[in-house]
Amino acid sequence: SRSISLAVIPGDGIGQEVVTEGLKVLAAVLPQDVKLETKEYDFGAKRYHATGQTLTDDDLTQLKAHDAILLGAIGDPSVPSGVLERGFLLKLRFAFDHHVNLRPSKLFPGVSSPLAGSPEIDFVVVREGTEGPYTGNGGTIRTGTEHEVATEVSLNTAFGIERVVRDAYARAQARPRKKLTLVHKNNVLVHAGHLWTRIFHAVGEEFPQVSTDYLHVDAATIFMVTQPERFDVIVTDNLFGDIITDLAAAVSGGIGVAASGNINPSRDFPSMFEPVHGSAPDIAGQSKADPTATVLSVGLLLRHLGFEAEADRIDTAVHADLAGRAGRPARSTVEIGDALAASV
Amino acid sequence: SRSISLAVIPGDGIGQEVVTEGLKVLAAVLPQDVKLETKEYDFGAKRYHATGQTLTDDDLTQLKAHDAILLGAIGDPSVPSGVLERGFLLKLRFAFDHHVNLRPSKLFPGVSSPLAGSPEIDFVVVREGTEGPYTGNGGTIRTGTEHEVATEVSLNTAFGIERVVRDAYARAQARPRKKLTLVHKNNVLVHAGHLWTRIFHAVGEEFPQVSTDYLHVDAATIFMVTQPERFDVIVTDNLFGDIITDLAAAVSGGIGVAASGNINPSRDFPSMFEPVHGSAPDIAGQSKADPTATVLSVGLLLRHLGFEAEADRIDTAVHADLAGRAGRPARSTVEIGDALAASV
Ligand SMILES: CC(C)[C@H](C(=O)O)[C@@H](O)C(=O)O
Ligand SMILES: CC(C)[C@H](C(=O)O)[C@@H](O)C(=O)O
Repeated sequence: SRSISLAVIPGDGIGQEVVTEGLKVLAAVLPQDVKLETKEYDFGAKRYHATGQTLTDDDLTQLKAHDAILLGAIGDPSVPSGVLERGFLLKLRFAFDHHVNLRPSKLFPGVSSPLAGSPEIDFVVVREGTEGPYTGNGGTIRTGTEHEVATEVSLNTAFGIERVVRDAYARAQARPRKKLTLVHKNNVLVHAGHLWTRIFHAVGEEFPQVSTDYLHVDAATIFMVTQPERFDVIVTDNLFGDIITDLAAAVSGGIGVAASGNINPSRDFPSMFEPVHGSAPDIAGQSKADPTATVLSVGLLLRHLGFEAEADRIDTAVHADLAGRAGRPARSTVEIGDALAASV
Repeated sequence: SRSISLAVIPGDGIGQEVVTEGLKVLAAVLPQDVKLETKEYDFGAKRYHATGQTLTDDDLTQLKAHDAILLGAIGDPSVPSGVLERGFLLKLRFAFDHHVNLRPSKLFPGVSSPLAGSPEIDFVVVREGTEGPYTGNGGTIRTGTEHEVATEVSLNTAFGIERVVRDAYARAQARPRKKLTLVHKNNVLVHAGHLWTRIFHAVGEEFPQVSTDYLHVDAATIFMVTQPERFDVIVTDNLFGDIITDLAAAVSGGIGVAASGNINPSRDFPSMFEPVHGSAPDIAGQSKADPTATVLSVGLLLRHLGFEAEADRIDTAVHADLAGRAGRPARSTVEIGDALAASV
């Protein structure tokens, strides 16, 4: 089926600008015989203010009909913290069972890192996306008083861990170094930690070629800045993954070039691809945002849909573009998008 | 009362070596009229293997009689992960209600950082030490099967948060920049997050001179590597504190110079001071370990007990020692301890 039906969610702030360039590059890289249909959705702060809605059942039904989703950025200071995060971003991840949160980190030549000596960085974090402390489980008693107690419950299932661990092994197996690191805190969070560790070893028997190791999450942050070259594929829980992927993005050139995918490998639901950066309202509308992270996210989207050659061409074009930046004047969002579209 | 009764826990691996130097510097810095009494305890892997005990009620009664505790390091590969961590380290923190886990990060001149350009780093993390996901709350059902479910419950109380937040404000107030940052994840962990945020603002009214801000934990890891100079005092929950203090140690010269205190400000129980590093069994017994982190922990111990001038002298001596290291041959554990003892 040489066609792609794509839901496009520009969202807030710089979202529209970067998504426009992402779509430009997508159109440029796709072979002529592939039919690309896009439909834009107006989720985000504006719709929330106008209607009070973040993501309705009807929205989910419509989104479900697409092959994939491309998102710019969701979030605005005018909306109370948590409303769009939980009402849109997390709701969508849970509704479409996006259990593989894929976040590659690569320090491209020409990109400067805050780390001295610009080490070799080329790893992928596979973050579980539908469990852990993200399930909204928890509550308060004596709310608002000096005796308030608040709980947050991390839920972890053998089913949920096994599928993401297996996905991570398969990704490690397909990479030259074939190395998988489990990151957790199994010396303190012993219940969840033992379950993760048990399943990590059990699934590992199916992948004898993959070498494995284990790091506590605190130690993992140390290695992320002192020896990032030691990582190949990392698999970890939802919250630890949230934390270490922001750190990973920071050491590998910043969130301006960090791409991500919220993936349901079963394809029962469309997967969603988005830059790791936020809506950056301070520079919105000024054509200052770097669309590179969105373009790389389009690459992940194409790879997910089986367009491997096209995804490779995007990576190569971005690689060359970044390498040529040093010492040149800054370009606008549109100029970078045009350059990438012309070179894919 | 010019006397100090000190419990000394050398522990495992390099623990004995670094504690010996810490005590040497302590003896050297204390005025003649201060009576120092030390008693050594044999906690750690050896005792666990010999007796199966990690920390008994009787041990706690004995430890409680001291003014403070100095610990080297606990942990050995021969003991299953989690046994000494929960059976000794965490048990002691909870038994003595060490709710202020104090971890200063300072990049001293002469110490190399993995960060390019060696930024100014001089901040303190106040990590809550007795709540959050560290309470051992949680469990499993269908254990060991493909239907296992494991939970971890983070417990957060207004009482527990308020006392540590107030301690952090007081520390911020006493520093030149007077800035306090709350680190949490209140857009996802909304129950605990709202409680932390509410109390953070409420207590702030008592400290009008302290300027405040808030960062999600994921964003905090980014700033830790891109703009560590933005931090002055950070207050955060037990797990987030565990993660960001290892990262903080890594960017400010490594865990070789990172000191910490497990403090009960009420002095109903002795507080415990220890280097952040572990027992490093690979270099144990070779006089290769750097005792600097232990010596700095002795400084925190003295400050806690009211010996401010002596604590300052330790900081100054360490400062000078580190600044003089560049280009010189490496010294043994004992040589570094001797040099510091001679210069305090
Ligand atoms: C916005 C927030 C809910 C989200 C998360 O915590 O997962 C973000 O930080 C991310 O990493 O995608
Ligand atoms: C050893 C472990 C229990 C401990 C913790 O998680 O608190 C350690 O990492 C620390 O930071 O002191």
